[in-house]
Amino acid sequence: MKRPQTDPDQSDAIVKTIFEEVRTKGDLAVAKYTSLLDGTNPETTAVTTAEILQAKDQISEDLKKAIATAQINIEKFHRAQQSPKIVVETMEGVTCWQEKKPIQKVGLYIPAGTAPLFSTVLMLAIPAQIAGCNEIILCSPPNKNGQIDPAVLYAAFQCGITKIYKIGGIQAIAAMTFGTATVPKVYKIFGPGNQYVTAAKQYAYQFGVAIDMPAGPSELLIVADESAVPKYIAADLLSQAEHGKDSQVILVSNSESLITAVEAAVNEQIAFLPRQEIAVKAIANSSLIYIPEPEDTLRFINDYAPEHLMICSENESFYIDGIQNAGSVFIGNFTPESAGDYASGTNHTLPTNGFSKNYSGVCLDSFLKSVTFQKISPKGLQNLGPTIEIMATAEGLDGHKNAVTLRLADLNETL
Amino acid sequence: MKRPQTDPDQSDAIVKTIFEEVRTKGDLAVAKYTSLLDGTNPETTAVTTAEILQAKDQISEDLKKAIATAQINIEKFHRAQQSPKIVVETMEGVTCWQEKKPIQKVGLYIPAGTAPLFSTVLMLAIPAQIAGCNEIILCSPPNKNGQIDPAVLYAAFQCGITKIYKIGGIQAIAAMTFGTATVPKVYKIFGPGNQYVTAAKQYAYQFGVAIDMPAGPSELLIVADESAVPKYIAADLLSQAEHGKDSQVILVSNSESLITAVEAAVNEQIAFLPRQEIAVKAIANSSLIYIPEPEDTLRFINDYAPEHLMICSENESFYIDGIQNAGSVFIGNFTPESAGDYASGTNHTLPTNGFSKNYSGVCLDSFLKSVTFQKISPKGLQNLGPTIEIMATAEGLDGHKNAVTLRLADLNETL
Repeated sequence: MKRPQTDPDQSDAIVKTIFEEVRTKGDLAVAKYTSLLDGTNPETTAVTTAEILQAKDQISEDLKKAIATAQINIEKFHRAQQSPKIVVETMEGVTCWQEKKPIQKVGLYIPAGTAPLFSTVLMLAIPAQIAGCNEIILCSPPNKNGQIDPAVLYAAFQCGITKIYKIGGIQAIAAMTFGTATVPKVYKIFGPGNQYVTAAKQYAYQFGVAIDMPAGPSELLIVADESAVPKYIAADLLSQAEHGKDSQVILVSNSESLITAVEAAVNEQIAFLPRQEIAVKAIANSSLIYIPEPEDTLRFINDYAPEHLMICSENESFYIDGIQNAGSVFIGNFTPESAGDYASGTNHTLPTNGFSKNYSGVCLDSFLKSVTFQKISPKGLQNLGPTIEIMATAEGLDGHKNAVTLRLADLNETL
Repeated sequence: MKRPQTDPDQSDAIVKTIFEEVRTKGDLAVAKYTSLLDGTNPETTAVTTAEILQAKDQISEDLKKAIATAQINIEKFHRAQQSPKIVVETMEGVTCWQEKKPIQKVGLYIPAGTAPLFSTVLMLAIPAQIAGCNEIILCSPPNKNGQIDPAVLYAAFQCGITKIYKIGGIQAIAAMTFGTATVPKVYKIFGPGNQYVTAAKQYAYQFGVAIDMPAGPSELLIVADESAVPKYIAADLLSQAEHGKDSQVILVSNSESLITAVEAAVNEQIAFLPRQEIAVKAIANSSLIYIPEPEDTLRFINDYAPEHLMICSENESFYIDGIQNAGSVFIGNFTPESAGDYASGTNHTLPTNGFSKNYSGVCLDSFLKSVTFQKISPKGLQNLGPTIEIMATAEGLDGHKNAVTLRLADLNETL
């Protein structure tokens, strides 16, 4: 059950320092840390329309088409998550309703580093747009030339996001938390990042900014039996392992021969991976586990609470019905985990580190909050009023009772 | 826009100390702080069945009936929030779905202190039961005699909660965070509390425990015009003001004469309140504000983002349609805020301190998390696969591509 961990205390001090500087000095502090940590001094942090149009020219037609397909699928799945206004007359004359409203200002953080994660732009910007968030901004670290990866800019533009800032790391999270002359303050921050970004998001929470979820290294758990194809399983384990040195992949199987075959296939395939060095380190954190009984396997999965769960088993409905804790689930021999990372339609921003026990992955609701309403008619207050009076009295809150008593007195007089 | 604030640093040190002791010493540490802070040494912290049955005998028939009515309304409104499984075939052969699953272990915290908040038991336990949480525990501080208020025990029992612990304050939050020999560890903690409980919940978050929402002092904003009844408005303002010295109540009106009349009515009514001393201090934090234009008023409300919003205006639909940020909204002259506190059916655990900009109040979804699933057929992978391959390549993640390429090669061979 143990996850690879980084020491949080390491990043805490630097997070506090940068937050305090950005809070007091705004854009100046942002520029200082961009220069210091990203090694570049962009003239302005706000990306211009010219830069966005230029990015468009740098994207191949194939990639444009692929992004369009992913966009359609992600949009379909997240649009289907819209929920209607719920209206209930709880008793005669007492009408209650619940409506979801967009979070008005949201900030999307897109890391750079080892890979330009334009797919994460789609995963965050599409539901934000469907939710109807008024102001959607995006921060991403500039490279040495002071540029954001063109695919990231292109994906943002395709999703209708035009407020894009060349700011990364802790200083980006701080800028979105407090606002600067250039960067608007937001109410909720979304997106993955390294341990510093993670620590910064946790810290932002203390200043009243909501965050999508606590983060940790990526992980995949596969449950498979002899109906699974060893080379597919190996490829899926490696696809997760190449994410980062601290990734964790786990295979649980009731078949010792499958475990042996998968191990061999991993060793064979890993040699051909460009990101072999990362994958090798992640594989060192990982396990192939033999569990004979399905009930024990299910208990193990629910205790581990994986970010990604893949089910390749003749017994698949047993696991589908029994799974309680997982971020996203991939079923069958032809559903690789990378389908959900990019284009099936589900979101890839998911709870890691066992957090699928208590957190949802990013979904449409992540960009909404629920507001309740009630309207009571005079008749309704006559029905409900005495209940409120008795309960308020029992809680020693006479002011609460009085607000009802005054009104009921007037209504009884009118009768 | 300024809220009454307490200094968070004051509570941080004591929270860390108690958490560390409870983490390492468990029940012993809990007993130490119960003795020190609550001035009592209950023989066991777990409430017995005998105690629950005894509590039942201490509750008047009137209060039992009132609790039953409230329970029915709250249950109706929260049951209506159940959402179906959402299934979408995003493209031929690619089926995605989203299902909500209960958070398996939840902890409810019910403060004692100035008033026994049995109504909060209903507001938390009812949706937890509807959600289907497997393990629901409740902590509440014991009084000097080592007892929990009978109304709290009765309400819990009526909601089917039987794992009840006589533990309050920071030590309760710590016990639910780490688990002790007596108290089970939970995945999410709900409920209000004083500044120490609030600080403890924030700290618990750092140990991977989710919390319902950040908390602050209670507040009410009323928008009213000449169609409102001054004495009702005054009674509602006072009902909120009696919650605590740090409560805040605000009236916004386009009518100077209404403001004058409400002020007079507040001064008149406050003299009769048993909790007058508290209300007087809260009123000192509060404001009566004249804003002539409805557009400006609406902007003010959305910027303030009140926990409770009351609308008593001929123009009510303008405000209902325009409100973006509020916890719970009360409409018309016969919908006192205390209706939602107890019995209309809506939840009274709401975001304060401007947090209605980014957080929902407690609702059914607070006890659920969403899990996504996908199943792709061979045909589906042939449709979607090339998109994944192109995107993975563009992100430099060859392992991700490979998981698709291997499968597509096999499928093409079969053809």
